[in-house]
Amino acid sequence: MDPKILRALSYGMYAIGVKGKGGPSACIANTVVQVAGTTPPVIAVSIHHDNYSNACIREAGIFTVSILSEDTSGTVIGALGLNSGRSIQKLKNIRHRVLREGVPIIKESACCWMLCKVIGQVETATHTVFLAEVTAGSEAMTGTPMTYAYYRSVIKGVVPQNAPSYEEPDFLTDPETEKYICTICTYVYQNPDVLFEDLPEDWVCPICGAQKSMFKRR
Amino acid sequence: MDPKILRALSYGMYAIGVKGKGGPSACIANTVVQVAGTTPPVIAVSIHHDNYSNACIREAGIFTVSILSEDTSGTVIGALGLNSGRSIQKLKNIRHRVLREGVPIIKESACCWMLCKVIGQVETATHTVFLAEVTAGSEAMTGTPMTYAYYRSVIKGVVPQNAPSYEEPDFLTDPETEKYICTICTYVYQNPDVLFEDLPEDWVCPICGAQKSMFKRR
Repeated sequence: MDPKILRALSYGMYAIGVKGKGGPSACIANTVVQVAGTTPPVIAVSIHHDNYSNACIREAGIFTVSILSEDTSGTVIGALGLNSGRSIQKLKNIRHRVLREGVPIIKESACCWMLCKVIGQVETATHTVFLAEVTAGSEAMTGTPMTYAYYRSVIKGVVPQNAPSYEEPDFLTDPETEKYICTICTYVYQNPDVLFEDLPEDWVCPICGAQKSMFKRR
Repeated sequence: MDPKILRALSYGMYAIGVKGKGGPSACIANTVVQVAGTTPPVIAVSIHHDNYSNACIREAGIFTVSILSEDTSGTVIGALGLNSGRSIQKLKNIRHRVLREGVPIIKESACCWMLCKVIGQVETATHTVFLAEVTAGSEAMTGTPMTYAYYRSVIKGVVPQNAPSYEEPDFLTDPETEKYICTICTYVYQNPDVLFEDLPEDWVCPICGAQKSMFKRR
């Protein structure tokens, strides 16, 4: 079997808002699906065991889903998806609103949001699949929902190591070319016209916003 | 909350192949997701309690996923998705191959296939979420995977009543216009240029292939 066939499954791009001990936080997920059509509807979301958001959802029993639109920038996705809420305030530079339940929804280029209450969970080797009732949500939606395929092909987005679909990129194993890799999000700088050394000192990673000093030569 | 926001979740289009008492059968699902990235990978698929395929998967403990491409015709989707395997041989007119395990894979416009072994299941009010290991699959993939959004917007496909995302279409509740509705798949004939009565007797439903006599006026 060619493992690439798993990439043919279709997904969306979602920000999962959680209530942590240190305040509201959020992560990126591509697996949010409706699994029952009753009133209220039931959705399933898959979150890696190691993710800070996983622990927060277990503790609080609630979370939000903000459905990201095609207008969402790679920087927003990088800030939420490629850093840990344990170490940084991810929402600092992202337009959001904290619901009275203490969970945030993303206002920056999101189509709509839902508030979800956990009703069950299933463990796999690496991820928890949370089942949750949708108890509230937007009164309308705007924009076109971003699919994971769009994120990969148009935004050229990277995949964090905790995603179910992660695999080591080919370029990391090619010994021929010198590369500068962001140690936060694994973005690889490869502009043939400007040497990495010649980038201005205030240049930041276009995906996760990390400073130039966070890049390592490989 | 506007219930339409649930339609902004992204899905694919899949044929789920099963081994029934009367032979191989298949249904359509839009919810197939990878939930763990281990070797072997683990996927989740959501199937309505009332579906024949649900009973077959419980009984046999295995099923296949054929990822449908954008080239898949509405007739193939209608034949598999809008009839019950309890009453008809759904695969009769569809190009397929039965694996030695007794489960079929779809050869007609599919991108690739996977053989899956059930390792757990979760019940919701209306659906079973089966968790399964992918134990075998295609050596390569072809074509562009069809998303559910593409099916709804380009193929103008209908949604069976057992889908999590089903809702009563607006036109069924509008008393002003006379309509002819396929009793098999709920497709509504509404070509303003040709009266339903004037269609040739060998005309069939463009979605599920039912004969003209299966349509009812409403």
